[in-house]
Amino acid sequence: MSPQRRTGLGTNQEAVRRHNLGTVLRHVHSAGAMSRAELTSRMGLNRSTIAGLVGELEQLGISERAEPAEGVRQGAGRPSAGVRVADNGPYVIAVDLGVDRAVVARVGLGGRILQRAQAPVHADGEAWQVGAAVASLVRAVVEDAPARSPLVGMGISVPGLVRRSDGLIRLAPNLEWHDVSFGAIVLAALGLDVPVCLANDADLGALAEHTRGAGVGTDELIYISGNVGVGAGVITGGHRLEGAGGYAGEVGHLRFDPEGRPCHCGNRGCWETEVGAHAIAEAIQCPADRVAQLGEVLDAFDSPSPALRATGTALGHGLASLVNMFNPRTVILGGYLRSLYMLVGPEVNAGLADRALPAPLESVTLTLPGLGADSSLLGAAEIALEPLFVDPVAALGTALDDVSSRLAG
Amino acid sequence: MSPQRRTGLGTNQEAVRRHNLGTVLRHVHSAGAMSRAELTSRMGLNRSTIAGLVGELEQLGISERAEPAEGVRQGAGRPSAGVRVADNGPYVIAVDLGVDRAVVARVGLGGRILQRAQAPVHADGEAWQVGAAVASLVRAVVEDAPARSPLVGMGISVPGLVRRSDGLIRLAPNLEWHDVSFGAIVLAALGLDVPVCLANDADLGALAEHTRGAGVGTDELIYISGNVGVGAGVITGGHRLEGAGGYAGEVGHLRFDPEGRPCHCGNRGCWETEVGAHAIAEAIQCPADRVAQLGEVLDAFDSPSPALRATGTALGHGLASLVNMFNPRTVILGGYLRSLYMLVGPEVNAGLADRALPAPLESVTLTLPGLGADSSLLGAAEIALEPLFVDPVAALGTALDDVSSRLAG
Repeated sequence: MSPQRRTGLGTNQEAVRRHNLGTVLRHVHSAGAMSRAELTSRMGLNRSTIAGLVGELEQLGISERAEPAEGVRQGAGRPSAGVRVADNGPYVIAVDLGVDRAVVARVGLGGRILQRAQAPVHADGEAWQVGAAVASLVRAVVEDAPARSPLVGMGISVPGLVRRSDGLIRLAPNLEWHDVSFGAIVLAALGLDVPVCLANDADLGALAEHTRGAGVGTDELIYISGNVGVGAGVITGGHRLEGAGGYAGEVGHLRFDPEGRPCHCGNRGCWETEVGAHAIAEAIQCPADRVAQLGEVLDAFDSPSPALRATGTALGHGLASLVNMFNPRTVILGGYLRSLYMLVGPEVNAGLADRALPAPLESVTLTLPGLGADSSLLGAAEIALEPLFVDPVAALGTALDDVSSRLAG
Repeated sequence: MSPQRRTGLGTNQEAVRRHNLGTVLRHVHSAGAMSRAELTSRMGLNRSTIAGLVGELEQLGISERAEPAEGVRQGAGRPSAGVRVADNGPYVIAVDLGVDRAVVARVGLGGRILQRAQAPVHADGEAWQVGAAVASLVRAVVEDAPARSPLVGMGISVPGLVRRSDGLIRLAPNLEWHDVSFGAIVLAALGLDVPVCLANDADLGALAEHTRGAGVGTDELIYISGNVGVGAGVITGGHRLEGAGGYAGEVGHLRFDPEGRPCHCGNRGCWETEVGAHAIAEAIQCPADRVAQLGEVLDAFDSPSPALRATGTALGHGLASLVNMFNPRTVILGGYLRSLYMLVGPEVNAGLADRALPAPLESVTLTLPGLGADSSLLGAAEIALEPLFVDPVAALGTALDDVSSRLAG
């Protein structure tokens, strides 16, 4: 719908109202409980329109009245009551598929994790076995969901390349998956028909950190995911960098050293051969079966070894290429890179400063995820919630209630 | 202005009308002469609103009536008259500042180059001397401008890093400029007060190719500028990738070979040390004073030498990093890279195919600029014309007419 179509054409009034309804909800979802005055100011609509929209969201069971004492974000003027997301409102299932474990959560509006469960995944497991394990975790997290809370959809974070058009996993190198329609596999194991979205873990980490983590208020950020392999999610101009097919951000395969080690992609000396989990594990003589838990292994170090310091420098050198290319304001180091940065931050910063151009260097900050280890999980929740912000009435129309008993049957 | 503000609030009707006026103009500027039916369909407004907007553009002297025989783009139904940009309508000055020469053009709506002039620039010239040379070229190209055609502004393409907030040239390495306010220098030399915008040459090349060159209809493209140094302009999701300060796209300084040659940026083995003009000139034993004309030098080759073939492979290898990072649909090779690609296209393609990941590789095409050597020049015109598409009434209100006699005075 073009903006022009919204200007007063009667046939579009309903579409405009639903769009505004979704926008109110997006504000409350992103920024938390908010007074009507604040909503009026943010959306540029008049007070009676806002009151009508808020009333409708309450009737739909999506939001509830919030008192000033509950920390309602206020606009100008005296403190007033406002709107917050409902306690038993709609929710989504978020899945963070890792190389060694799957985490599944029931997540409500506002990014609230209501229930979570996790289980090991075997890297040499078949996709259908992993799908069945994820389905079991889903059953576990919806068990205590209130019967009248509707399930809007499911989002799945994948450590690999996901085709945007249909969510096909083109390649998940550390799971050794090629062209796997994992969404359908999980639905088949569940026997449930809900909308499913899949996306790359780093892209989802960037999305969640931008919405409610270390990247709030920054429209130029990169989230680097260390999840055995290394990938990047990029937000530029406030939008996700997706590329033609949804594959953008494969920074692990930036050329780093043409004389370097062979990479699983078939090349030699990709950045991942220096800062990927396998390379770091080798450098610190970590056993192969602990590679997928590299973050925990690194957290146990009191001080960095010379090999880790060298890895920190290599991380900084590669980040310099990204800073020269994207001119980000914030670079967030997630997954095991978070643990690495806590150990060798000075080496990373020095490596970056040594190789980045002065102009983009002067405004960039390296930082840790605001959402800890949950960035990609909460990003998966964000893409599943998205239909609620586009048109809450339509999204609730297709949502499923009483999911627990449906799954039990 | 948020979309919500446009929905029927009386105080915003004038803003909406001007926005629509600019949008009509943008369509005609980008796609060429167009029937009212086609405009009605593209903009989703009703016929009488379109008729009113077209009438106002004619009154403003920006557009003229076009007959079907003039190649008017038609919507459904029988061919009808339409609208095209006026012959003596508003124009801008576009400046393509190169390392060895400056090109200046008077450019009208539709990207029509109405008059052009160029002069050599000495790489060791002071900024004020270059500014004076550019001012002389401006005088030359406005000489024959009709007195009643208004000058809207000036756009300048720069082979370097330009700060978006104020157009300061932070670094133009091959001109050896640091922190030069070149826009003010040119205005001082001209003695004329017009809006001036500066931007990086590759960014402008990408913009122009996206608007009317090899990237029309592609919202994911990279334009690589070979202009002594190497830089990239990236369009993603239909928007320019700018970064926090406007410095994004410095792909010449991607790490390519840590054992490689020293780069002027202070590092070693940047991609530019393999595919920059100085490296190629050395490889083909081209004299140093011809480096800035490397494109012409390469055009004179009948067949590529082994050194050039190796450069082609290095170009492909670096492009693979960009394809992995951005997942573009189209990569346009501009400047001397255009000449290089015509000589060693197979090596470039093979180098790319050898190193890019299969998923992003399958949808990417390497191609030559649709605008030949004028991509950055026409991109400079685009940014200078932009105010006309935001609010034509306001832009014309501050435009200067009879510029030729003002400059003569």
